[in-house]
Amino acid sequence: MGLPDNSGLNLFKKYKKGKNNLITDVEGVKVSHVTLKNDNVNTGVTVVFPHEGNIFQDKVMAASAVLNGFGKSVGLLQIEELGTIETPIVMTNTLSVGTATTALVKYMLKQNEDIGVTTGTVNYLVTECNDGRLNDIRGLHVTEEDVLNALNSPSEYFEEGAVGSGTGMCCLGFKGGIGSASRLVDVDDKEYTIGALVMSNFGSSGNLIIGGDHIGRRIQGDAKKDEGSIIIIIGTDIPLSERQLKRIAKRAAISLGKTGAYMGNGSGDIAIAFTTANRIPHYSNKDIIETKMFFDDHIDKVFEASVEAVEESIISSLYHSETIVGFLGKEAKGLKEYL
Amino acid sequence: MGLPDNSGLNLFKKYKKGKNNLITDVEGVKVSHVTLKNDNVNTGVTVVFPHEGNIFQDKVMAASAVLNGFGKSVGLLQIEELGTIETPIVMTNTLSVGTATTALVKYMLKQNEDIGVTTGTVNYLVTECNDGRLNDIRGLHVTEEDVLNALNSPSEYFEEGAVGSGTGMCCLGFKGGIGSASRLVDVDDKEYTIGALVMSNFGSSGNLIIGGDHIGRRIQGDAKKDEGSIIIIIGTDIPLSERQLKRIAKRAAISLGKTGAYMGNGSGDIAIAFTTANRIPHYSNKDIIETKMFFDDHIDKVFEASVEAVEESIISSLYHSETIVGFLGKEAKGLKEYL
Amino acid sequence: MGLPDNSGLNLFKKYKKGKNNLITDVEGVKVSHVTLKNDNVNTGVTVVFPHEGNIFQDKVMAASAVLNGFGKSVGLLQIEELGTIETPIVMTNTLSVGTATTALVKYMLKQNEDIGVTTGTVNYLVTECNDGRLNDIRGLHVTEEDVLNALNSPSEYFEEGAVGSGTGMCCLGFKGGIGSASRLVDVDDKEYTIGALVMSNFGSSGNLIIGGDHIGRRIQGDAKKDEGSIIIIIGTDIPLSERQLKRIAKRAAISLGKTGAYMGNGSGDIAIAFTTANRIPHYSNKDIIETKMFFDDHIDKVFEASVEAVEESIISSLYHSETIVGFLGKEAKGLKEYL
Amino acid sequence: MGLPDNSGLNLFKKYKKGKNNLITDVEGVKVSHVTLKNDNVNTGVTVVFPHEGNIFQDKVMAASAVLNGFGKSVGLLQIEELGTIETPIVMTNTLSVGTATTALVKYMLKQNEDIGVTTGTVNYLVTECNDGRLNDIRGLHVTEEDVLNALNSPSEYFEEGAVGSGTGMCCLGFKGGIGSASRLVDVDDKEYTIGALVMSNFGSSGNLIIGGDHIGRRIQGDAKKDEGSIIIIIGTDIPLSERQLKRIAKRAAISLGKTGAYMGNGSGDIAIAFTTANRIPHYSNKDIIETKMFFDDHIDKVFEASVEAVEESIISSLYHSETIVGFLGKEAKGLKEYL
Repeated sequence: MGLPDNSGLNLFKKYKKGKNNLITDVEGVKVSHVTLKNDNVNTGVTVVFPHEGNIFQDKVMAASAVLNGFGKSVGLLQIEELGTIETPIVMTNTLSVGTATTALVKYMLKQNEDIGVTTGTVNYLVTECNDGRLNDIRGLHVTEEDVLNALNSPSEYFEEGAVGSGTGMCCLGFKGGIGSASRLVDVDDKEYTIGALVMSNFGSSGNLIIGGDHIGRRIQGDAKKDEGSIIIIIGTDIPLSERQLKRIAKRAAISLGKTGAYMGNGSGDIAIAFTTANRIPHYSNKDIIETKMFFDDHIDKVFEASVEAVEESIISSLYHSETIVGFLGKEAKGLKEYL
Repeated sequence: MGLPDNSGLNLFKKYKKGKNNLITDVEGVKVSHVTLKNDNVNTGVTVVFPHEGNIFQDKVMAASAVLNGFGKSVGLLQIEELGTIETPIVMTNTLSVGTATTALVKYMLKQNEDIGVTTGTVNYLVTECNDGRLNDIRGLHVTEEDVLNALNSPSEYFEEGAVGSGTGMCCLGFKGGIGSASRLVDVDDKEYTIGALVMSNFGSSGNLIIGGDHIGRRIQGDAKKDEGSIIIIIGTDIPLSERQLKRIAKRAAISLGKTGAYMGNGSGDIAIAFTTANRIPHYSNKDIIETKMFFDDHIDKVFEASVEAVEESIISSLYHSETIVGFLGKEAKGLKEYL
Repeated sequence: MGLPDNSGLNLFKKYKKGKNNLITDVEGVKVSHVTLKNDNVNTGVTVVFPHEGNIFQDKVMAASAVLNGFGKSVGLLQIEELGTIETPIVMTNTLSVGTATTALVKYMLKQNEDIGVTTGTVNYLVTECNDGRLNDIRGLHVTEEDVLNALNSPSEYFEEGAVGSGTGMCCLGFKGGIGSASRLVDVDDKEYTIGALVMSNFGSSGNLIIGGDHIGRRIQGDAKKDEGSIIIIIGTDIPLSERQLKRIAKRAAISLGKTGAYMGNGSGDIAIAFTTANRIPHYSNKDIIETKMFFDDHIDKVFEASVEAVEESIISSLYHSETIVGFLGKEAKGLKEYL
Repeated sequence: MGLPDNSGLNLFKKYKKGKNNLITDVEGVKVSHVTLKNDNVNTGVTVVFPHEGNIFQDKVMAASAVLNGFGKSVGLLQIEELGTIETPIVMTNTLSVGTATTALVKYMLKQNEDIGVTTGTVNYLVTECNDGRLNDIRGLHVTEEDVLNALNSPSEYFEEGAVGSGTGMCCLGFKGGIGSASRLVDVDDKEYTIGALVMSNFGSSGNLIIGGDHIGRRIQGDAKKDEGSIIIIIGTDIPLSERQLKRIAKRAAISLGKTGAYMGNGSGDIAIAFTTANRIPHYSNKDIIETKMFFDDHIDKVFEASVEAVEESIISSLYHSETIVGFLGKEAKGLKEYL
């Protein structure tokens, strides 16, 4: 598998791209896909792993922003309260969230014998978009085994486009899916990475903007009804507090605006941001733990780089998705056909 | 089955109780339990039905308050965004949320052929507490069939105490579970009802307060570690806006304080409030719909009545729970043994 | 005074403009300016009046969104809790908020003899941006009389650009100030109006985007440090609930993204939305009051029209601001010099 | 002046009191009062100083919780966004907030020549309650000089009761005012202090509870209309993050419930928590700064100690307030007359 190549995209970049221009450019971050694709079934599972170890025992600091809450993601309440992620982040279709949750629980129980016995429970993090246009979503085709397969195959390299949980997604009137990008930021004279991965399923036909060019109107005419959602995962090795991670997550709205969204009523627009630089152990002998945060007055470069990475991830998710004929013969066109 | 009787409880009541002193005193509200109880299994499912019809097609206005977010409830994001509940409210143990979600999805799909095809998806509402002290929670003993059985048996009459999802819960060092109460409020010269139902699993041994009497300290000595959670459902036929329902949900913290909680770190304290007086249809030909709200300057009586109903529901959940020997022989004492 | 003319701006419009393309196209809404401008003083006061009557006795339903909270606006807490605005909305510079508050209090006391005696106090609404680059802000040059003058001169017609509280503002490396626009939306076969007014003071030199054209980079080169803030007022006669007004306020972030903002650290980005269609009286004999809301599934047209009006208001604030030499000889260039 | 003595209060204490049982037991925290008291004037100013240095240059980490937002406090937006306090905390009556803001601005400008010129503006923090029952609040009797006097007289020792901004406040049907208390907590084998100071003006006659004893009902009969507000300041030297400080602030609702509040509609119930252990400089050469936080799984003792300190502060504010005849001859009884 060759690495995704965004060179055909004419996007302004103030910040340098990371090695592979993927979220996995952040040290330790991994991704995996399980794709279900045949006839009426176009769905799957994608997992983002914040690091390679036991995430429950060694949590990452995190925050989220609900940009528009027409969504069913599971696990955000506890991130808000405790500021940590303690499981891999599972992405799937809306009606398979229950199955994905159960599979994630089983995976976590297997990995951690203390859960539910000598310690409390676990905050499973499962996100979703509705792929019902191209997928027989009522069929509940994602199985626990599919989710466990995804949980057991983390990788630094991964495909973008119509793969994993992105298989059946549509975005801005085109075929959507999984997109990713990364940026490098100089922090105290050292280079750090901020990466993004999106599952794109939002927006109206006619609204796509690429680098300021309102290409959607040219290709598709006036906007139709906005539908769908987007899940945005932002990972970094820059030291940031929970409050700062929330600030970064909120700025995903800027990237949405720049690509043609206005956050339609029926869109579940959720951003989750984590840093691998602040780890919170599950057990501690100490009451006080040391953390690092960013000096807020210098943080604009992190905001900007993050906005760029999310914007490119969205466009990249379209760029890498081929035309597909899905559920009941409905078609979604790949963007590349028009470039 | 006789109706629960709280007459042994010495609680101050400024407001009159409803007919049965249950949340089902609110016209149309129903409850059901499925109880799983044998050896190491002490768990189950409880469902609150906001009304008797098709809740997806005829939603109730609602809001929630996350008092302490160490919790895994599913469905709150969309309530915040859209201000409606569109499924029955399912309660179960923390690790069975996935199973309950899938079962609720299947129930909703069966009832609504449009979901996922000609209309969007559905916002499943599943809440939970951790019954791992008395229940083999890692065994994931709740099945989809159990949840469907609960979803198919709404009733005006229901038991309180160690039943349904409350079977394995502990609260303030005693056996906890399901409790309910109701109050009547005069609104524009007409009598309305506000009811509460709780699944109680919070608090430290030593902290129970009943009507101002710090009885827990007398019985159990100084407080130990706070654990567990509480789910609080408040239903009413009083016309209230989403904003006002949120104000009511937030005031559940007052009831918690009065019964001995200080909202410990590990407690998922979630309150959900709905009114049957404002119905939002799933389909509408009109852009503008008529609603009713309360005049805020007169709302204190609703706040007070709600605080009373939640306080009594908590105490009632203890009062009706008998001593139990559960998982690995661990015992939880029923409060009545001490009264 | 001729009416502001935006015909030189090449902005995409899906929705029709209102009569004057100003927030005052919403029936009853008025605006006034007091401009202070000489030597080192470049500041002032702008007031938005939600309607022509006594706003304390006849409140308008409202909500706000804090897009980035580096701001000192006064009055937002109570809007969040009660969902109403009960005074005119005063805009001024950051360090004159105290003076403006006192003047607004005096104005409200004079108009309402019950405040503080037979009824409670009043929730004064004062917003601000920092005009310290062009104005001797430490001089506290705004007087109570200036604010009272503005409060006493509501008008349907008003200037845009470097006037009123916008006199000393800078935006995206150009001279900023006051901008306004409006859009018409068909609701149940009747035409309604949504208007916006902004005080623009945000963004980096180099970042301005007009209708997708990244003109700032062409004119000014790479972006510098982001500074300043924006206050966004959205008014409408469309019936909306507090929850829906908040949704609209949050979408101002999309307009910000489309004009070149990424919500810098030091930016107080505040949006306030109100509807004249839902009035809440200060006194009522009734507990229950009738209100109207929008059917959420149809609301996208209101979202889009609002995003358009805010975007055009921002560009219009630059378009109507002439080059100025201000405090300590510092200059801010008017955008028109480059068009 | 002798130190306030709470020995007549029968309050349960799990945690040890600090040296003087005042918020100033937290190293560096100071308080000052200016009391205005004659005929119809019963009002004043109270200031809490988070530390003795220049707070703008050396900020303290902070958070707030709006328990009920019928309030006009100034400065909370920026605390939420940036997690710091950068001025002393000024408390006064509702209609004098403008005057207090202007005075605080002048105090900060004098102390910091960079504000508004070489750096941005300052986030003035001014809180309020409505003392209109006992004070001629429409007279706006607080002057800038009064506020500056309070800002210039920080002290470790201070009076409780009807002093400073508490001079004209009423609480739970008794004379209210300023109350304070502190608790000691063992953290990693070292003793830390958590202190509280309240300006009490909330609650209904008939609702006072002291240590579980519903004394208000005995003395005053059934509850009347709830009015007024409470400002709660919590200071500590325990290392806590902004997120954790918010958790602590939210738990003030528990203390309110235990003293008889149900957070009435017209109550502005605001809690602000800060720690002197995490200092954020205004200027920094570094992007990354070191901070400390608490291990959340051990934090219950901090929650409990804080709830105790706030509860005792409320009761102490009543206990130290003598009977007063105020505006238009209206009387408020001191609690001690009934003990």
